[in-house]
Amino acid sequence: MPSGEDDLIARYFKPLATDPGALGLTDDAAFLKGGGDDLVVTTDAIVEGVHYLIGDPPDTIAKKALRVNLSDLAAKGATPAGFVLTLALREVNEQWLAPFAQGLGGDAAMFHCPLLGGDTVSTPGPLTISITAFGRVPPGGLVKRTSARPGDRIVVSGTIGDAALGLAFLSGKMTADDAAREALIGRYRVPQPRVGLATAVQKYARAAMDVSDGLAGDLAKLCAASGVSAAIDAGAVPFSDAARGLIARGRSAFEIAVSGGDDYEILCTIPDERLDAFVKAAGEAGVAVTPIGRIVDGHASPRWSDAEGREIVLPRLSYSHF
Amino acid sequence: MPSGEDDLIARYFKPLATDPGALGLTDDAAFLKGGGDDLVVTTDAIVEGVHYLIGDPPDTIAKKALRVNLSDLAAKGATPAGFVLTLALREVNEQWLAPFAQGLGGDAAMFHCPLLGGDTVSTPGPLTISITAFGRVPPGGLVKRTSARPGDRIVVSGTIGDAALGLAFLSGKMTADDAAREALIGRYRVPQPRVGLATAVQKYARAAMDVSDGLAGDLAKLCAASGVSAAIDAGAVPFSDAARGLIARGRSAFEIAVSGGDDYEILCTIPDERLDAFVKAAGEAGVAVTPIGRIVDGHASPRWSDAEGREIVLPRLSYSHF
Repeated sequence: MPSGEDDLIARYFKPLATDPGALGLTDDAAFLKGGGDDLVVTTDAIVEGVHYLIGDPPDTIAKKALRVNLSDLAAKGATPAGFVLTLALREVNEQWLAPFAQGLGGDAAMFHCPLLGGDTVSTPGPLTISITAFGRVPPGGLVKRTSARPGDRIVVSGTIGDAALGLAFLSGKMTADDAAREALIGRYRVPQPRVGLATAVQKYARAAMDVSDGLAGDLAKLCAASGVSAAIDAGAVPFSDAARGLIARGRSAFEIAVSGGDDYEILCTIPDERLDAFVKAAGEAGVAVTPIGRIVDGHASPRWSDAEGREIVLPRLSYSHF
Repeated sequence: MPSGEDDLIARYFKPLATDPGALGLTDDAAFLKGGGDDLVVTTDAIVEGVHYLIGDPPDTIAKKALRVNLSDLAAKGATPAGFVLTLALREVNEQWLAPFAQGLGGDAAMFHCPLLGGDTVSTPGPLTISITAFGRVPPGGLVKRTSARPGDRIVVSGTIGDAALGLAFLSGKMTADDAAREALIGRYRVPQPRVGLATAVQKYARAAMDVSDGLAGDLAKLCAASGVSAAIDAGAVPFSDAARGLIARGRSAFEIAVSGGDDYEILCTIPDERLDAFVKAAGEAGVAVTPIGRIVDGHASPRWSDAEGREIVLPRLSYSHF
């Protein structure tokens, strides 16, 4: 006597619930085995028309919904343990749900982060996807954003600004050649959470967070939370070839890149004496990391400067929902 | 440099984040201390206009959003450990947020289930509240819905049908005197999760779930999941005085009561030899529990019968979102 809701879950999501703790999605709850590790919990929601565009492919939406959470876990030094999914749907549209579930399942397998449970509800509004993800760290080992200290090197993973520039294309605010366009839009639609970097972050970083609302704004948040300031060498910020090409053409691309958000790279601070070990561990994990500045004393906003040491004033630091 | 979103969180939700694991809501994640216990995870979302009515008081909406999750934890035998909250808001309306946060904080304190983190996003659609809650059980101690066995007594907590009858009033489908009306609507708006019963369920129940989609349908689900059937004595089902008055007036109130849902009572199966101990433990926890039937062999839908043993055929078993 399965209802429509149970049927939907059985068809699309039960195949993803391979972990014993998921209880085959036949129960009201799931469980995570206890143990010495602390459990890290993070939650992120995405809304149709706000966090993704209505025509975006369902599999990329699923991946993004999970990956933004995996990115938070990695930035806290946590290894994925599983996630729960809440879907608020206007209708049961199989042509949307089938690729959504497939994209989600692929990522859950790839990142070893199994679906544990969830809730499916109807809404007259935009499709809304909320994921709460769990990770494990050694006891007391969560890497906070409040613990940066003057002298720490500031390091980011990967490249900055690709997703924000991709979104600028999608919303018609920029133009570029086809190859650059595709690369940047791809980064917007499907971020690359730095799951592989989690252990190195846990081991070597003093403070960390993921870059989701723009590097400039997120760095300012990390500094404010730690009661410190920062000096950033804008010329050291790592950009992809596609982004670099756009930045060479004008200042606005630079501003979009460092304040636009959706990077899902890791921003962390590393004591000088641990930097080499961190870079080595990151290399072994296959993730590029780049020092871009230093934590300094004070409560001023982080100072950005160019190769000649001239201050760069950014018109806005990040994206806010309200 | 707090954005509107950070400001909103600092003002309304930081006061609720008293647990050290919440990190003062200044981080991207929270943590739960490890230990021998398994962690039980449950998630439930409620949507304006679907799960609550647009004019419902914000404090009762908050309480309901948390309590439906606490009910799931209790039914699994788990003691609350904390929760994360996702709010999808159309606008920042202080007149709505202030009482919402106050209602949520009151319940979090009362049920010892602290806010650990969350996400706040904007939506053009209905206000949507998603909560993922955590509880602890001894290792391997989660009480499933798949483990009922023939011979088990079927027991429910509290009274059945009040909330569904309350909703019937609110939506104009029924009339009654003012006192009954108030009592039933109150049960719809603010369910009473049986948190106090969790330890007894964990200790004595073989299978359990909470009644959220209607007793008849949820019992059928429990039986299907366990590969068994059930015989229910309809006359034994516990009703409040207010519900009993309505049921005496006609069959439709009975049908609404046993299939309407929103009860958030615990439905569990108890081996005969543990029934007395369970009833005693429930009494000590201050929760009434009532045996209403027995698990039997077979795969048929549960059979409901009246005092004379005549079968009662229910036109529908539960509420489905789709």
